[in-house]
Amino acid sequence: MNEETTGHTLKAFDDDLNRLRALISQMGGLAEHAIREAIRCLQTRDLDAAKEVIANDAKLDALEIETEKRAIQVIALRAPMAGDLRDVVAALKISAVVERIGDYAKNIAKRIPKLEASRDIEPLSLMPEMARIATEMVHDVLNAFVERDAEAAMRVYERDQAVDDFYNSIFRTLLTHMMENQHNIGQAAHLLFIAKNIERVGDHATNIAEMVYYAATGEHLPDRIAKVEEGEADN
Amino acid sequence: MNEETTGHTLKAFDDDLNRLRALISQMGGLAEHAIREAIRCLQTRDLDAAKEVIANDAKLDALEIETEKRAIQVIALRAPMAGDLRDVVAALKISAVVERIGDYAKNIAKRIPKLEASRDIEPLSLMPEMARIATEMVHDVLNAFVERDAEAAMRVYERDQAVDDFYNSIFRTLLTHMMENQHNIGQAAHLLFIAKNIERVGDHATNIAEMVYYAATGEHLPDRIAKVEEGEADN
Repeated sequence: MNEETTGHTLKAFDDDLNRLRALISQMGGLAEHAIREAIRCLQTRDLDAAKEVIANDAKLDALEIETEKRAIQVIALRAPMAGDLRDVVAALKISAVVERIGDYAKNIAKRIPKLEASRDIEPLSLMPEMARIATEMVHDVLNAFVERDAEAAMRVYERDQAVDDFYNSIFRTLLTHMMENQHNIGQAAHLLFIAKNIERVGDHATNIAEMVYYAATGEHLPDRIAKVEEGEADN
Repeated sequence: MNEETTGHTLKAFDDDLNRLRALISQMGGLAEHAIREAIRCLQTRDLDAAKEVIANDAKLDALEIETEKRAIQVIALRAPMAGDLRDVVAALKISAVVERIGDYAKNIAKRIPKLEASRDIEPLSLMPEMARIATEMVHDVLNAFVERDAEAAMRVYERDQAVDDFYNSIFRTLLTHMMENQHNIGQAAHLLFIAKNIERVGDHATNIAEMVYYAATGEHLPDRIAKVEEGEADN
């Protein structure tokens, strides 16, 4: 390959990669909005807006398919190497995770009609703050991807403990609530699953942090093995 | 590209694809075993074997990384088109889903030490049969992938309703149990999450069924939009 071709190829590859990054940012914006909306609907029992959260999830599904298609094209047409390949594969994998974060918003929204009667269950007051931290983690880790910032990704990774602490506290509070209000056990069970969904959003932000770190440095985060996937919260 | 090169490339590609299929089969075998073992440990309260289920999950993580690496190599080196590309991308995506199925087994195993005191909670009797169907779905859908059998994938897809029915029944039974046995609410909450994990295994088998169907036919399953990701069971 001569110099000129190389320069041309590099420019084209950069354009491709920037388009992938833009798609990921767009997906991230939609997923963050979906989680925030789902929690707002949960607090206000806004059933119409909850339906919209559910319907809007199709946009994320479509954007994931689009990102995957483009990433595969870039790999097949440009055969990128080393750090370039890691970036494209990261985009491919991150889009799948962001799509799943959207699913959690949808799942929360789906439970809202079942909660009509339980406005005053106390652990509800912890849920918005827990969701705020988890959503901020998603926001910051996707920024870290766009800016190839391994340090910023690592900082997001470390914040998941706060989400897990919120979750464990909500779990215990809901169990106590169940023991004291048997008539409300069904509602509390739905809140338990909602809290678990938010906890999973935090886990997925840490999964993305690992992917960003690896894409940027070529090395896995030191304690990757210790914290893969679900189940790091106590319950 | 001359005939000879084409023949050579085709042979090499087929070898690559067969290696990918073999990796997926190996992962599937491990994931099925992990779910079955986790449920056996749940029934017998075998804490040592549960620890092994947790430790063995690292093998699935490693095989997913291996599958991803090989799939990306095949795309970059052979630039496959149409059905060939769909097969490689399907392998890439299916390995990620099988890894997640392994995570559900790990999550179930992690809850077992918390259940020591509740041997006689009744919904436990439904759990093994629910897990048997879900595991069989995983087994059959991965066979369908290896054999590129879209019809077999569709049949797996349809069996998820049985898993959802089991889940809904267990959900209701556990809630009734909670109302009648407040001292057992914590244990019942863990069983609720375990049942949800098994229900998710069935969902993931249907996700794989969609991927197999698309890889084999180039078309999406007709009601793909209606049944993406979590939340299809009632609760």
